[in-house]
Amino acid sequence: MITKQYVLTLPSLHRGMHLITERINDLLDGSVQTGTVHVFLQHTSASLCLNENVDPRVRSDAETFLNDLIPENYPKFLHTYEGSDDMPAHMKNMLLGSSLTLPVTQGRLALGTWQGIYLFEHRDYASGRTLIITLQGE
Amino acid sequence: MITKQYVLTLPSLHRGMHLITERINDLLDGSVQTGTVHVFLQHTSASLCLNENVDPRVRSDAETFLNDLIPENYPKFLHTYEGSDDMPAHMKNMLLGSSLTLPVTQGRLALGTWQGIYLFEHRDYASGRTLIITLQGE
Amino acid sequence: MITKQYVLTLPSLHRGMHLITERINDLLDGSVQTGTVHVFLQHTSASLCLNENVDPRVRSDAETFLNDLIPENYPKFLHTYEGSDDMPAHMKNMLLGSSLTLPVTQGRLALGTWQGIYLFEHRDYASGRTLIITLQGE
Repeated sequence: MITKQYVLTLPSLHRGMHLITERINDLLDGSVQTGTVHVFLQHTSASLCLNENVDPRVRSDAETFLNDLIPENYPKFLHTYEGSDDMPAHMKNMLLGSSLTLPVTQGRLALGTWQGIYLFEHRDYASGRTLIITLQGE
Repeated sequence: MITKQYVLTLPSLHRGMHLITERINDLLDGSVQTGTVHVFLQHTSASLCLNENVDPRVRSDAETFLNDLIPENYPKFLHTYEGSDDMPAHMKNMLLGSSLTLPVTQGRLALGTWQGIYLFEHRDYASGRTLIITLQGE
Repeated sequence: MITKQYVLTLPSLHRGMHLITERINDLLDGSVQTGTVHVFLQHTSASLCLNENVDPRVRSDAETFLNDLIPENYPKFLHTYEGSDDMPAHMKNMLLGSSLTLPVTQGRLALGTWQGIYLFEHRDYASGRTLIITLQGE
């Protein structure tokens, strides 16, 4: 078995869901045929998630729903000095998560037909986000 | 260290939480004594999760709560052409997740006494769901 | 590649978020320079999560928000015989999760600058929680 690790810094992305499946697949060079790839986001106001990769309204519906669930200017939030989108961003990150572990089969991501990997940016303005990607297997 | 990978297709299951702990344990043949098992669901309208494995009302309460949280016919949802249970299913999947990584100790799942592994089906009607299971360790 | 596994039992903690980053870092002895560490909670009424590690109001805001989202005495909950904080605790655990996989780089956790690892206790009174920690890499 071997371990390989990569650092991937994405460009600055606008608020919402951004498909990054190919960015991850591009790192797989065939050295691991069977195993897992762990994708880790080093930030607490964006998330990593999977979702349906066909209809863009799934992504906008998810953004709409989460904004309704965790509204900006939630009256009880005390952590407000980084902007009204900051504490909701932390809360969304807690619910969706900061990492994904995905299976690798025959050297490629073994996702389902309709699954895509997303960087979900929760802030209105954010710098490029950094991912640490760890490939393990044989 | 070794890696082993399995494909497990479950039968079609009705909406709600279904205990699959033994389906995963049955794949552990002792070849890995210490390590992890990664269970991955290749779908975006069901979830994998852990929960208490004793009182069936925990499972029905979870179904009730999530249905209240993410109602069908949510007025702002635009992705509706696959049925009123589809976009809520994607949203539940985003919140609960599509994979679990579990420790393996002495060749067996090292779950807590009250923990069970569940396939949480969010659709009213779904075909059998496919899992990719990757065992890594020594 | 090697695998190492540890059992860590935390002291009994009060309801809310507790930073445990150093408890995990202390287990890393340099034997794995590049890889992953999997932290698994053997319980269903507390959670493991990442979050911002600077302003303590982020943690109290998260507690406040989750208590509003999943209130005690939710009228439809049927699983009530373990106390009014029990079913909400199971529900929070389902949303936040029971495990974290984190990258290891140069022998240390490769967290972002502002990321901390938290044990989120959801019960009013709980015994010490047990974690199974599995380190894999080379």
